[in-house]
Amino acid sequence: MYEKREKKPSGTKPGTTPLSELGEFGLIDRLTRPVQRYHSETLKGVGDDAAVIDTGKGVILLSTDLLIEGIHFDLTYTPFKHLGYKAVVVNISDIAAMNGIPKQITVSIAVSSRFPAEVLDELYAGIILACEKYRVDLVGGDTSSSTHGLLISISILGTASREEVIYRGGAKPGELLCVTGDLGSAYMGLLVLEREKKVFQVNPVMQPELTGYDYQIGRQLKPEARTDIRNLLLGLGIKPTSMIDISDGLASEILHICKQSNVGCKLFEEKIPIDEHTRELALEYNIIPTVTALSGGEDYELLFTIPQTDYEKIKDVSGISVIGHTTAPSDGKYMITPDGKSVPLTAQGWDGMQDRTRG
Amino acid sequence: MYEKREKKPSGTKPGTTPLSELGEFGLIDRLTRPVQRYHSETLKGVGDDAAVIDTGKGVILLSTDLLIEGIHFDLTYTPFKHLGYKAVVVNISDIAAMNGIPKQITVSIAVSSRFPAEVLDELYAGIILACEKYRVDLVGGDTSSSTHGLLISISILGTASREEVIYRGGAKPGELLCVTGDLGSAYMGLLVLEREKKVFQVNPVMQPELTGYDYQIGRQLKPEARTDIRNLLLGLGIKPTSMIDISDGLASEILHICKQSNVGCKLFEEKIPIDEHTRELALEYNIIPTVTALSGGEDYELLFTIPQTDYEKIKDVSGISVIGHTTAPSDGKYMITPDGKSVPLTAQGWDGMQDRTRG
Repeated sequence: MYEKREKKPSGTKPGTTPLSELGEFGLIDRLTRPVQRYHSETLKGVGDDAAVIDTGKGVILLSTDLLIEGIHFDLTYTPFKHLGYKAVVVNISDIAAMNGIPKQITVSIAVSSRFPAEVLDELYAGIILACEKYRVDLVGGDTSSSTHGLLISISILGTASREEVIYRGGAKPGELLCVTGDLGSAYMGLLVLEREKKVFQVNPVMQPELTGYDYQIGRQLKPEARTDIRNLLLGLGIKPTSMIDISDGLASEILHICKQSNVGCKLFEEKIPIDEHTRELALEYNIIPTVTALSGGEDYELLFTIPQTDYEKIKDVSGISVIGHTTAPSDGKYMITPDGKSVPLTAQGWDGMQDRTRG
Repeated sequence: MYEKREKKPSGTKPGTTPLSELGEFGLIDRLTRPVQRYHSETLKGVGDDAAVIDTGKGVILLSTDLLIEGIHFDLTYTPFKHLGYKAVVVNISDIAAMNGIPKQITVSIAVSSRFPAEVLDELYAGIILACEKYRVDLVGGDTSSSTHGLLISISILGTASREEVIYRGGAKPGELLCVTGDLGSAYMGLLVLEREKKVFQVNPVMQPELTGYDYQIGRQLKPEARTDIRNLLLGLGIKPTSMIDISDGLASEILHICKQSNVGCKLFEEKIPIDEHTRELALEYNIIPTVTALSGGEDYELLFTIPQTDYEKIKDVSGISVIGHTTAPSDGKYMITPDGKSVPLTAQGWDGMQDRTRG
């Protein structure tokens, strides 16, 4: 039945709605609209980095991510060990984005029987390395054969006190927009890897030219989760009013916070932290460097809002940038360019680049 | 890269280990052997129907299941709504098997963009129907495009008190082996559906001959989870010493209990509950009816052990069968046929029927 579908050029019947019309978030909205809540301990369901469940002694955070060969990763240039590590990290990042502590994961894999066991040993070596680094217990999963390639589904549990949890929806107008680390490098790393893949496909004896791009490739293939930010902010005496991780690009994540907090925003382009070499590399590729940060994705940094009164506490903290502020919702959502122009912020949906790059 | 692999007839390089050599459980053992535990609240990790995590106020149970088109389901004869319902039920069954109460699920799907949104509406209608029936909150997930067909990954949380949780490893020699409901019908339902699919492939104008097989097809396409057993046993004043759900067939599940409890077993063939029509149908298909129960799988009934002293309490309970007893581990694991022969119990591994039928 599937094969029939594949051969059909258009695929969707007349009178039906193609998924591309809805976009990923439109589809999620449509599918989960009829959902009822039966348990009062479910404090937060669909619509944040993780679900939040009251245990009577703090909360449990639950999140899940699916990684599919050919959609989320390309085995031509992704070592299995890196893939395993990253698959865990992207889940840990979701817990960090709720200000929680990651605790347990389950790992389900489906794999064509043509993969030898040694390949899965490598994948699990990466998974176990990430578990060790982030002190996470691997507690279960499911192993299955697949008809096509490799897929990895990870679910994660984290903990926090009820008061510690930070949602996407807590920002108020007039707060500071802050971001950790720098943005856009993971995307440039992907472009370098894709370019070398094409060179290799044309001429398989060519050695890949990857030297000089270590930072960007590392950000793409072996990202880290910002579990350190929880303690950093605690030490500074700052509790963000909203937080989200940057997996789909800065623009998309700012818009999530604006939508769920019902605020507008002003993002100052020149304040967006971009690594100098990444900036040069983007220009080499004829890409406006800001675009790599706004839409590249997979940076796994944290975006958060704090009250203006916390400005003095954060302004000199290395590795955190204040990139703008929230506004009244009626003021709209804009990026301000260095020459003072206001550009409306937009995000990408189901199609296009994002699907290739999201974790 | 994947395509290259697919075209290679053997697939695994010399000196590597094909997955088929390990079997599913051998593979899981191999991959998870180096796993460390960092958190004392992780009471049980890999190796039961669900992981068990102490919250300080009872426990959280966590389980996950992956369903892949072409491996776990066939869209030729599986309505999307049934598929969604079943995907939730198989997860709920894992929580029932721990004697827990199912509470929250996450649902991740990956789908080729050629599926119209209406198809996913149907899938979610089934998911939401199961959530309603079993009072489970849908709290999150991930939606992605796929390169091939449909896949569904569900994770589930349940709760219980620490004392209520029933593991696979608690049986002692000389206890009664009990099973709920009847076994083998889901497998016969699958065979009927597969037969009609072949007829349809040869002659697409033929209407499928499914009348008269409602029970078997229902058991295959829309199984239910035995969440009622928790209260039934509570009412009888019985606490099983071990429990597991029957997703892979009775033989495989008995062997899990024997291995993890370090006991042997005697299973009496004539005591295995098999629906009368399923028995006739099996004979029609030239299959020994017992085999459908032992190896068919997907029955989602519960297998449990209780002390012999509870025999009087359970012997007349409708819908529960005492099918044998545990023994000292040195006595081995046997099925006793009606004419008194002892047959060693074996289970199937990675290859063959099980992979087609496991949920």
